Amino acid sequence: MKIIESGVTAATGFKAASVHCGIRKNTEKNDLSLIVSEKRCTAAAVYTRNLVKGAPLIVTKDHLSDGYAQAIICNSGNANTCNANGIEIAERMSALCAEKLGLEVDDIVVASTGVIGQPLDIAPIERGIGPLVGALSEDGSASAALGIMTTDTKPKEIAVEFTLSGRTCRIGGIAKGSGMIHPDMATMLVFITSDVCISREMLQRALSSDIESSFNMLSVDGDTSTNDMVTVLCNGMAENAQITEEGDEFKTFMKALNTVTVALCRMIASDGEGATKLLECRVSGAKDLQTAKTVAKSVICSSLLKAAMFGADANWGRVLCAIGYSSADVDIDRIDVRFRSDKGEILVCENGAGVDFSEEKAKEILLEDEIEILIDLKSGEYQSTAWGCDLTYDYVRINGDYRT
Amino acid sequence: MKIIESGVTAATGFKAASVHCGIRKNTEKNDLSLIVSEKRCTAAAVYTRNLVKGAPLIVTKDHLSDGYAQAIICNSGNANTCNANGIEIAERMSALCAEKLGLEVDDIVVASTGVIGQPLDIAPIERGIGPLVGALSEDGSASAALGIMTTDTKPKEIAVEFTLSGRTCRIGGIAKGSGMIHPDMATMLVFITSDVCISREMLQRALSSDIESSFNMLSVDGDTSTNDMVTVLCNGMAENAQITEEGDEFKTFMKALNTVTVALCRMIASDGEGATKLLECRVSGAKDLQTAKTVAKSVICSSLLKAAMFGADANWGRVLCAIGYSSADVDIDRIDVRFRSDKGEILVCENGAGVDFSEEKAKEILLEDEIEILIDLKSGEYQSTAWGCDLTYDYVRINGDYRT
Repeated sequence: MKIIESGVTAATGFKAASVHCGIRKNTEKNDLSLIVSEKRCTAAAVYTRNLVKGAPLIVTKDHLSDGYAQAIICNSGNANTCNANGIEIAERMSALCAEKLGLEVDDIVVASTGVIGQPLDIAPIERGIGPLVGALSEDGSASAALGIMTTDTKPKEIAVEFTLSGRTCRIGGIAKGSGMIHPDMATMLVFITSDVCISREMLQRALSSDIESSFNMLSVDGDTSTNDMVTVLCNGMAENAQITEEGDEFKTFMKALNTVTVALCRMIASDGEGATKLLECRVSGAKDLQTAKTVAKSVICSSLLKAAMFGADANWGRVLCAIGYSSADVDIDRIDVRFRSDKGEILVCENGAGVDFSEEKAKEILLEDEIEILIDLKSGEYQSTAWGCDLTYDYVRINGDYRT
Repeated sequence: MKIIESGVTAATGFKAASVHCGIRKNTEKNDLSLIVSEKRCTAAAVYTRNLVKGAPLIVTKDHLSDGYAQAIICNSGNANTCNANGIEIAERMSALCAEKLGLEVDDIVVASTGVIGQPLDIAPIERGIGPLVGALSEDGSASAALGIMTTDTKPKEIAVEFTLSGRTCRIGGIAKGSGMIHPDMATMLVFITSDVCISREMLQRALSSDIESSFNMLSVDGDTSTNDMVTVLCNGMAENAQITEEGDEFKTFMKALNTVTVALCRMIASDGEGATKLLECRVSGAKDLQTAKTVAKSVICSSLLKAAMFGADANWGRVLCAIGYSSADVDIDRIDVRFRSDKGEILVCENGAGVDFSEEKAKEILLEDEIEILIDLKSGEYQSTAWGCDLTYDYVRINGDYRT
C-alpha cells in the first residue's frame, strides 16, 4: 500500500469541484462542493449521535437507506440546522443536483456546514449548480476540499493505492473540521471515495468498525456537532472480485481505509481551532480495549492538559488527574507517563509518582508541533490512540465571536 | 434567615487564622490556614470521585470515620498528591496540629491544594504551626480564606443566621477553587462551620443531599480535581434541641446550608480561572430532575458556549447543540432559550428554531458580568440550575504555564 498525493478523485471514475455561489459574502471563499462518480456506488455512512441533527443528515440518511449513492453535494457557511424549513431546503438541494446530473434524487448525499439556526437561502445554490457541474474535474479533489472548509485553515485530503485480486485499487478522502469536534459517531464532514468493488453490507461494516479507532478517538473541544457525518462511496471500477465477506481482501480494504481515516483525524486535530500543536495520546498496557480508549480520550479532552501543552509545560499531574476522573478502572500506582516528539522522549512519572527529570529537556521536547503523550498502564496488552490539539488564545478568539 | 458578613468564624466557638510559613516563595501570600472549634464537632465530608486522590483526603477520611472533628489545617502551594511519601506528610501535618492544640490526631481534618506531583516539605509547616495557633482569632475567617487560595483572585466566604428551637444559629463557610473545577462529589476545598447541634448521621445526610444541587452543578473547566473536599463541622454551641431526624428543624438547617453552599458555588464560578462572567444555566419544564440536571450541566460545560459568552455573542445554536449531545431525552422541537442579565431578557430560540431578535439588545444583555441562560424544555415540572464561567484568553494564559 502506498500513499498518493490526491483525495476524493484518486479512485477511478470520480470527479469533483467547488464554486463560490454566494452563501458566503466573501467571494474568495468557495462555498459549494460536488463529488460525482461515473457509476452508481455502494455507499455507507455514519452520523452524529447529537439529538439535534442537521436537516441534511436526515435527508441523506433517507437517501442512503437503499445502500447506494452516486454524488455528494455540500455547502459551507450555513449548517441548515434548527431551521423550520431545513428538510425542505435539503431536499431541494438534492433535487437540483440530481436534475443537473441526470441522477435519481435518492442517489444524492447532501451536507451543510457552518452556523446553526439561520435559514439557508436556496437561491445561491440554484444559481451555482450549473457552474459547479461544469467545473467537475478528475483533478477537482483539492477544490472540493476547499469548498467545504469553515474555520479550517488548511484543506484536508489523502489517498492510498493498494491491490485486491490483482487489480490496482484506490481510496481517497477529504475532510473539514476545526471546532465543535468531539465526534460520538463520526466527525464533522468526511467524504471518502474508492473504486473498490464491495457489497454495501461489507462497506457499512468496514466503516462502522473503522470509526471506533479513528474519528471516535478525536476531540478538539468536547463539543459533539449536530452535523457530523462520514460517507464512503465505492463505485467498483477497479474491477476487483467483489468483497462480500470477511477474509484477507476485506482486511486489506480495512487497512487502506484506516490509513485514510487516521490521516484525516490527524489533519483535523492539528488544524483544530486555534491549535498550535497536534497531540497524540497513546495508551498501552491496558487490561482491555475499553480501558485504553477511555483513558486516551479523557486525557486528550482535558482543558487543563491542553493549555499546559500550549505552554510547553510538562505538567504530568494533569495527565494523572484526567486518568483519575476518566471512570476507567486502572491501578494508579503502576502508571508511567512519558512525553515524546522529534526532539526525543522523557519519562516524567513512574508508578504514579513524579521522577526527577530535566525541565530543560522536557521544554525542548514540548516546543515541537507534534507531541505524543505516552501512558503505560502496565496492567495488560491492550492499547489505544486518541488525537487532539492544544487550547490556545486563538481558540477563544475564534469562538468568542463566531457569528459576526 | 439572614446573610451576615462573615465566614467560618460566624458560628459560636470557632476561631481561624492563616500565616505564610514558606511553602510558597512569595512571602506576601499566606500558605497555611487553620480553623478550630472550642468544642468537639459532629463532622461530615464528601470527597472527589477522581481515582487519583490527594494523600490528605485519604488521611482525613480515616480521621472522620468516627464522625467527629475539631480542627482543620490546610496548606496551599502544593497539593501533596502523587508523591511517594504523601500519606506520611499528611499524617505529620495532622500530628503537628493536634499536638499544638492539645487535641486527638483523629479530630484533625487535613487538606492541601496546589501543584500535583511535587514532594511537600514538612519543615515550613513545623516552623509555621506555632505562629499559626498564636494568630487564631474570632475574626480570622477572612485570613483563613486567603491562606487557602491558589489561582483564586478573591477570597470566598459567606455566613447565614437563622433560628432553631428558639436559639440563634449560624452556618458559615470559606472556599477556594478557580481551575480544575468540575466536582463529581464535592468541590476543590470548602470548609463550613456551624454552632447547630445535629447528630453526625443527620449532618452527613444533609451534606450529601445538598451537594447534588450545589457543588455537583458547578463547572469551570470540566476537570475533576484530585483534591476536592467539602467539610462541615457543627459544634452544637447554639444549644438548640439536637437534630436527630427529618422534620421542620432539619429543613430549616438544610435551607441555611444550601444558602451557604450555593453562594460559595457562585463565588467559585465567577472567580473561575480567567473568568470575566458568571454563567448561570436555569433549566425548567423538564420531565424529571435528572433530565434538568443533565441539560444544565452539559450547557454550562460547553467550551464553545463559554467562548461565545466571553465574546457576548448570542450564539444560541451552541446551547441547542450542547443539549443535543447531553444524552438527556428531550424533545428538541419544544425548547425555548432566553438570555437574561441586569439589562433585561431576550428570547432567541422558540420551539427549537431561531426567532428574529435584536442583536443590539442581545449584545447589551450579554455584556454584563452575570448572565442567565434560561432553557424551558416545556415537557414537565422539574428544574435545575448549574453554574460556570466564560472561557477566556486568561484561562489559557494561566494554564499554559501554571507550574513556573
